[in-house]
Amino acid sequence: MFNFKNDYCYIAHENILNAMFNIKDEANEVYGLDKHSANAKELIKKHINGVDVDIHFLVGGTITNKTIISHILRPYEAVISATTGHINVHETGAIESTGHKVVTIDSHDGKVKVDDILKCIKTHTDEHMVLPKLLYISQSTETGSVYTKDEIKELYTCCKENGLYLFVDGARLGAALATGLISIDDLAHYTDAFYIGGTKNGALLGEAIVVVNDTLKENFRFSIKQNGGMYSKGFVAGIQFEALFTNDLFLKLAVNANECAKLLYNELIKRGIKFQSECITNQIFPIVSNELYEKLKEIAYFELWEDLSDSKVIRFVCNFKTTTTDVLNFVLKIDELLK
Amino acid sequence: MFNFKNDYCYIAHENILNAMFNIKDEANEVYGLDKHSANAKELIKKHINGVDVDIHFLVGGTITNKTIISHILRPYEAVISATTGHINVHETGAIESTGHKVVTIDSHDGKVKVDDILKCIKTHTDEHMVLPKLLYISQSTETGSVYTKDEIKELYTCCKENGLYLFVDGARLGAALATGLISIDDLAHYTDAFYIGGTKNGALLGEAIVVVNDTLKENFRFSIKQNGGMYSKGFVAGIQFEALFTNDLFLKLAVNANECAKLLYNELIKRGIKFQSECITNQIFPIVSNELYEKLKEIAYFELWEDLSDSKVIRFVCNFKTTTTDVLNFVLKIDELLK
Amino acid sequence: MFNFKNDYCYIAHENILNAMFNIKDEANEVYGLDKHSANAKELIKKHINGVDVDIHFLVGGTITNKTIISHILRPYEAVISATTGHINVHETGAIESTGHKVVTIDSHDGKVKVDDILKCIKTHTDEHMVLPKLLYISQSTETGSVYTKDEIKELYTCCKENGLYLFVDGARLGAALATGLISIDDLAHYTDAFYIGGTKNGALLGEAIVVVNDTLKENFRFSIKQNGGMYSKGFVAGIQFEALFTNDLFLKLAVNANECAKLLYNELIKRGIKFQSECITNQIFPIVSNELYEKLKEIAYFELWEDLSDSKVIRFVCNFKTTTTDVLNFVLKIDELLK
Amino acid sequence: MFNFKNDYCYIAHENILNAMFNIKDEANEVYGLDKHSANAKELIKKHINGVDVDIHFLVGGTITNKTIISHILRPYEAVISATTGHINVHETGAIESTGHKVVTIDSHDGKVKVDDILKCIKTHTDEHMVLPKLLYISQSTETGSVYTKDEIKELYTCCKENGLYLFVDGARLGAALATGLISIDDLAHYTDAFYIGGTKNGALLGEAIVVVNDTLKENFRFSIKQNGGMYSKGFVAGIQFEALFTNDLFLKLAVNANECAKLLYNELIKRGIKFQSECITNQIFPIVSNELYEKLKEIAYFELWEDLSDSKVIRFVCNFKTTTTDVLNFVLKIDELLK
Repeated sequence: MFNFKNDYCYIAHENILNAMFNIKDEANEVYGLDKHSANAKELIKKHINGVDVDIHFLVGGTITNKTIISHILRPYEAVISATTGHINVHETGAIESTGHKVVTIDSHDGKVKVDDILKCIKTHTDEHMVLPKLLYISQSTETGSVYTKDEIKELYTCCKENGLYLFVDGARLGAALATGLISIDDLAHYTDAFYIGGTKNGALLGEAIVVVNDTLKENFRFSIKQNGGMYSKGFVAGIQFEALFTNDLFLKLAVNANECAKLLYNELIKRGIKFQSECITNQIFPIVSNELYEKLKEIAYFELWEDLSDSKVIRFVCNFKTTTTDVLNFVLKIDELLK
Repeated sequence: MFNFKNDYCYIAHENILNAMFNIKDEANEVYGLDKHSANAKELIKKHINGVDVDIHFLVGGTITNKTIISHILRPYEAVISATTGHINVHETGAIESTGHKVVTIDSHDGKVKVDDILKCIKTHTDEHMVLPKLLYISQSTETGSVYTKDEIKELYTCCKENGLYLFVDGARLGAALATGLISIDDLAHYTDAFYIGGTKNGALLGEAIVVVNDTLKENFRFSIKQNGGMYSKGFVAGIQFEALFTNDLFLKLAVNANECAKLLYNELIKRGIKFQSECITNQIFPIVSNELYEKLKEIAYFELWEDLSDSKVIRFVCNFKTTTTDVLNFVLKIDELLK
Repeated sequence: MFNFKNDYCYIAHENILNAMFNIKDEANEVYGLDKHSANAKELIKKHINGVDVDIHFLVGGTITNKTIISHILRPYEAVISATTGHINVHETGAIESTGHKVVTIDSHDGKVKVDDILKCIKTHTDEHMVLPKLLYISQSTETGSVYTKDEIKELYTCCKENGLYLFVDGARLGAALATGLISIDDLAHYTDAFYIGGTKNGALLGEAIVVVNDTLKENFRFSIKQNGGMYSKGFVAGIQFEALFTNDLFLKLAVNANECAKLLYNELIKRGIKFQSECITNQIFPIVSNELYEKLKEIAYFELWEDLSDSKVIRFVCNFKTTTTDVLNFVLKIDELLK
Repeated sequence: MFNFKNDYCYIAHENILNAMFNIKDEANEVYGLDKHSANAKELIKKHINGVDVDIHFLVGGTITNKTIISHILRPYEAVISATTGHINVHETGAIESTGHKVVTIDSHDGKVKVDDILKCIKTHTDEHMVLPKLLYISQSTETGSVYTKDEIKELYTCCKENGLYLFVDGARLGAALATGLISIDDLAHYTDAFYIGGTKNGALLGEAIVVVNDTLKENFRFSIKQNGGMYSKGFVAGIQFEALFTNDLFLKLAVNANECAKLLYNELIKRGIKFQSECITNQIFPIVSNELYEKLKEIAYFELWEDLSDSKVIRFVCNFKTTTTDVLNFVLKIDELLK
């Protein structure tokens, strides 16, 4: 079976597994105060110029979103998200469980637009309604699209002009960085906080949150601990991010995933298959006949994205271990199915 | 420097690291629905007779406590804990953050007594007060003590007679099991839920919660996800618990830690050092002069437990990697200090 | 100035004020355990046949919604509401503050439809999403419409078939009852809980929640107290609902408000004014030119409902003190404006 | 039967009932933006010199505590309270329901001491514990005692030196003011917020919160609304506080209650009855034999405070309607019982 189901089905990149093995006899400080975490933070900070940031490692994406959002907001304040935003759909109400409404605006292929934000602010007129105070976006988005540097800058400017914070969910930040449309440094300049997702780009688990805005830095470790996001063995995160940010491994893994996706996209286009959206990152969304859909299920793992009755949108995801050979062999098999 | 600071300063047992390395090319199901998790659950269930339990793996201890406690309680219900209970002191109000009061009763060397529970229930008379509905205990406790099978049974009987659930925090369950005073099977018979702590007994991270009471089983995965306790790569937990429950590794690691602690305890007793409590598990609490305290700090890592002004209670913890050689060398050094 | 702004601008009906004065020397039991509350409950129960209900008085509408909804739901469960639902728009995120997501479905002139509920349930597929468990509707709705007995029954059947509870926000229940399309008895048969709003129908403040479903009855007073909805002087509510349910005062006040609204509606129709929706209860929504809007503001209090650029939807509300004379005088003034 | 059970068993003072009757034909602005509320605030502000405060009216005591405390605290912050504090014991976990731990310190006849506060702060050492950020005290306390001006000032100084806010629960503030030991102006100078309790001093219901600290003022109406504490008919509160702060009615009612309690206390002392604490305000705590207790129950309503096995502590409360005649008649009856 071919595997195009997701980008977190393999345990971790070999460098990470080796690095963990290498420290097996090393007694470390705990709760993230160890030397590996310190070093990993320095390695990440090398990508950021002229902005003083705080970096923390948390055990997962949902908990990172929950921690930073509840850390930012007062009880009556709300977070704005695209309807397709992960916090709105796929975190079992984790944000609401901390007491905050997720106010939704239209999703434009996973992305939000300034006009919709302004409209949202305008309709929240008084104390009988929640007060939108934070914009949440995903980069890359849930549908594989990417905000360019200019787009992020425009959103950030809008936020600052309207008293909003901007937080970027980077569960798939690698895929966005690999497009070259945005850099970690850009995010450090045009957001209040963002996270660098390890889980979906070669790590066992773990995300690095970068807190940019000074007013959000104080007591953040209290929020991490209360939300359950703090590792006892913080060096488990440290050692992974050290490996990922050595010799550009993080970027290289994401580039590989994106390139494999692009290859698959191009080959399928050649074969007349239509897509729901353009290929930007490591997720692509072919529209296939019900017949082809059934045949594909027998040779590959992938997700059904949307059932259009007479056809189906499916999702193929490439990851840090996918190879061009995997892709080309898959295409050969599809050729057989299409005969 | 000798290291007696805690039981989570080493990354993981070699068998776990090897097992992770061995599956590096294996694409797995995600969110805990993989074969390693399934197998690990079966291995744990072999320790349980005649009780049908659900097992789930979560990323850490605080989040496990938070998840099960908020899953059990209605909004106005409270959890009873010893004043020394981890949830009362060292989780940054994580339980309260889910909306529930932690009602405290006296700690008797870390343990709770039936009389105190009954008194607590009796003082909560009406709807102007919270309704105690759950008893939380730690096994082994925060001070290294252990409830025997009979003690757990007595608490469970008390709970059932008074409409309470009983949940056991097993962050250091290994240390309790290694005493032989209690078994996993006993816990499955005399609790509503308990967890088997991996982090403090050889795992990278991760805890296995065993849900015994049928009424608590439904939709538990919703609670795990909402609290952020669900691994994307659930097989990271599965592979670890497979290793820990193969050839009794989990028990052996805990036995080693307890035995090293016992050796250290006995040797120090011989040298006239007094202890705050008896050695039961892998944590011991010597009372040392201020002078000795200062000298010890130069040769070893350990924790200051309580400052008694004219002397100090300190904590030595042995772990899965501590050896009798480590202990004996440490004792030799102490002999020099005591000269 | 004429006053058509809302139905809670007058302190209370004279009978209520008199009743309060009459008990000024009476020492009463507190927290709702008094004889007036007991009697008021009996008077309400006379409207209900063959169903055993619990009735409680709470201090206000938002707190009633918050109390019952958080009492019903488990942490990961959500409430379904029309986008226009009061809990979704105008309670400052009170429901989310108790930890629950409000899942929205389309509003059809303030009402929800079975098809939309079924679609909503169907899209919530697994534990990565909240679990819809409760349907919230308003009767009469925020836009003045009313669910008929058959419609409520259909929604209730849908709820029962799909494991949902049904709760009816009756802030303006009087207006719905006054149409004759539904009775208190119908609600007791086809909902799990509903409330009878006092504030907007002649009371100083206070709502009577009727808990129908047995599984929701236990410990409800704990939820009321925790949410702050319990009166210290419960007899303040008791005395009011005694007055309202004596000689059909509650119904009569609502009938008056509806009839005045209908009169105003008909007179304006005669004058060629269009409406956004039909007149069903005590709220009507004329569409007026910007010019007329400006003139109306000088002679009356009312609310701007929606700005259509070239015209405006405004809201006129009649209340328990509005008279047909008020309405006819207002119409005469409008005639002058229209000249 | 004599009634010494509590201070909220009578509906309201006649002036309030009359004032309500007088505005029965008056259409008012809603949600607290009416002229009566504005005027009532001005009347209260006359008691405050040189401090700019915000005043809001809320529907009850529990909801006022919940609203201000959750408005002040960040998620990981905690409130310090005496073990006897109302929020700790008698609000069904309302504070915890907003996510915050109530950290308790010793109660000295209902009052807290600086030393205990400092000790509490010192034991909260890092991010594994909650961060105490607010001191909650009751004035007068749950046991009838009163903080003098100097004591409040000392607590306030301690708070400011340690980064804490100070909030005063004034459910029985009248009783404290009536002692002359403290004034509203003192509270405005030496707290961050306090409330003036109407319910227990002659009002139907309602409390006036005075927000002193500028940093707490912003968006407070959002918090009131979200917590359900906002009156739709805000003028119901306005009219009451107008009456209470006209001709010193508020003070006079409290003086009466205190004086009646003092009379009863003195008469009982003369008869050899011992008390658990001195009489300071309107609550007194006689210690009576079990025999006398049984006899008293037949002639009066009062509360059992503490069962000492061989005797009982009971509570007598005087209120705004208690007269010296009531007290003296009661004493005559007791004389008969004592024969």
